[in-house]
Amino acid sequence: MSAHPRFSLNQATVKFASLAEAIAATKSADIQSIGVWREPVADIGLDAATRLIADSGLRVSSLCRAGFFTAPDGPERNAALDDNRRAIDDTAALAAAGADGSAAVLVLVAGGLPDGSRDLVGARERVRDALGALEPFGASAGVTLAVEALHPMFAADRAVVSTLGQAIDLAVSAGPAVGVVVDTYHVWWDPNVFAEIARAGRLGRIASYQVCDWLTPLPADVLLGRGVPGDGHIDFRSLTDAVVEAGYTGDIECEIFNADVWARPYDDVACEVSEAFTRVVAPYL
Amino acid sequence: MSAHPRFSLNQATVKFASLAEAIAATKSADIQSIGVWREPVADIGLDAATRLIADSGLRVSSLCRAGFFTAPDGPERNAALDDNRRAIDDTAALAAAGADGSAAVLVLVAGGLPDGSRDLVGARERVRDALGALEPFGASAGVTLAVEALHPMFAADRAVVSTLGQAIDLAVSAGPAVGVVVDTYHVWWDPNVFAEIARAGRLGRIASYQVCDWLTPLPADVLLGRGVPGDGHIDFRSLTDAVVEAGYTGDIECEIFNADVWARPYDDVACEVSEAFTRVVAPYL
Repeated sequence: MSAHPRFSLNQATVKFASLAEAIAATKSADIQSIGVWREPVADIGLDAATRLIADSGLRVSSLCRAGFFTAPDGPERNAALDDNRRAIDDTAALAAAGADGSAAVLVLVAGGLPDGSRDLVGARERVRDALGALEPFGASAGVTLAVEALHPMFAADRAVVSTLGQAIDLAVSAGPAVGVVVDTYHVWWDPNVFAEIARAGRLGRIASYQVCDWLTPLPADVLLGRGVPGDGHIDFRSLTDAVVEAGYTGDIECEIFNADVWARPYDDVACEVSEAFTRVVAPYL
Repeated sequence: MSAHPRFSLNQATVKFASLAEAIAATKSADIQSIGVWREPVADIGLDAATRLIADSGLRVSSLCRAGFFTAPDGPERNAALDDNRRAIDDTAALAAAGADGSAAVLVLVAGGLPDGSRDLVGARERVRDALGALEPFGASAGVTLAVEALHPMFAADRAVVSTLGQAIDLAVSAGPAVGVVVDTYHVWWDPNVFAEIARAGRLGRIASYQVCDWLTPLPADVLLGRGVPGDGHIDFRSLTDAVVEAGYTGDIECEIFNADVWARPYDDVACEVSEAFTRVVAPYL
C-alpha cells in the first residue's frame, strides 16, 4: 500500500537504524519524507549524510533535535548555544539536500531543571533568552526553530516547556524564525489544545505536526510509552482537524519512542506506522 | 518536635493504617488535623468513624474522595452520582465530629476516559454536568466539593481534569459550593499556576492545599512516585507564597502515594512528614 504523500517517518521510530538503514526502510514502505536525528548524522558526518539524503529522493521534514539551554550563564550554556548554531547549519544543509518540499525545521527540546535547581521560572526565562539569541541565526540560515512542548511529566528532567501555549508565547517573543511543534502525545490532554492550535495557526507558527499515541498503563520507563496511532487513547480526528483548520500543510511525522517497536525489523515498522497513519490520521487531511 | 498547627496528615500517606491507627499516628506526632479517606471509614462504618474522630480531638481537613463521573448516562453514572451524594453526607458528619476548625471538604477526582472512549471533550462535559447536579446537595449539606486537577499524565485513566485553571472553570460553572484543591504534585509544572492560584483565591475557591514532591526518575508505577516535601524538584516557597497571597488560611495536607513510605511504621511516617512540612513549607506561612 502506498504511503500517504504527507506522511514522514521520524527516525526515532527506528532508533537503532543508521541513516542509510532508516532511508532504506522509509523507501521500502514507499514513504516520501523522513525526519532525521542528529546522532545518526554525526555517526557518518554531515557530508555523507547530505549525500545519502540527496541520493534518496526523500524530503526532509525536520532535524531532531537541539535545545537543552536551561543552564545558567557559563561554559555549559555557551556550549549549548554553540551546539544549537551548528544544528541550525546542519538543518539547512540537510533540507537543501532533500527533495522539493523539504522543510528546514530544527526541533528544539528545552531541557529540564539544572541539577539541584528548583527554579522552574528561572529555567523557563533562560529558554526564552536562548531562543531570542538563536532566532537571528535561524533567520539568516532560513531555518525555522521549532519549540516542542513536552508532556508535563517531563518538566523536571527533560523539558521545562510544558504546554503548546507556552511554546507559542516563546516563539512570539523570540521572533519570526521560531515556531512550534504540535505533537499529539505531548499536548492531547490540554484543555486549551484546540484554542492553542488555532492561535499557532493564526500566528503562522506551526512548524511541525507529529503524531503518536498515548498508551496506558504507562511503562516502567515513561519515556518509552509512546504508541502507534490508533493503539491508545488519543482522538486523532479532532486534533488533525484542528491542525488542518489552522492552515498547516507540511509533512506529518510519526515519532514513536517504544522499546517494542525499536526491537522489530525497520522495514516492518515503517510499513506498520505508515498504514496506521493512513487509517487513523489521513482520513482527516 | 511539635507539628505546625496548620499541618494535616492525609490518611493516604499511611495507606495501610485503619482509621484508629491513622488517628493514633497523627496524635503521636502531635499533629492536630487529619485528612480522612472513605475506604477506612467504610471498613468500620460511619458511626464508629465519627466517634473515633470526636474522641480524638483532631480536626478533619477533608474527606477523600468521590467523583469518577465521566460515564455516559446510564446505570453506572447514576450509581456514581448516588455515591457522591452519600460521600457529601459522610463529609458533613465527619467534619461535625471533628474539632473546631474542621473543614467540610469532599475531594473529587473526575475519573478517566470511559473504557474504549477517546472522547476527552465529552468526558469533560459530563464532569461539568455532574458537578452542576451535585452542587445543590453540597450547598444544602454545608459541604464544599473540591475538584482536584490531577497531573496530565493521568488524563486517560484517572482524571480528565488536568489543570488548575480547568478545575476553577468547572467550579465557577457549578456554583458556590464547588471549589478546588491545589496539590503541588499535580500543578507545579503549569506555566499558569501562579496566575491560576491567584484567580482561585479571588473567586474564593481554594478549598484545600496539599503538598507533596515530584521525584525523578518516575517509578515503574507512576501513581506511587510522590515524595516527601523537600525530596524532589518542587519549589514549595513560590507555590506556598502564592496560596498564602490568595488568602487560603485552612489546613494543609501532606498526601504521599509512595510504596516505600507505606511500608514504614505509621508513627515514623507521621513524624517524618510533619518535620518535612515544618522545614520546607511552614517557613512561608
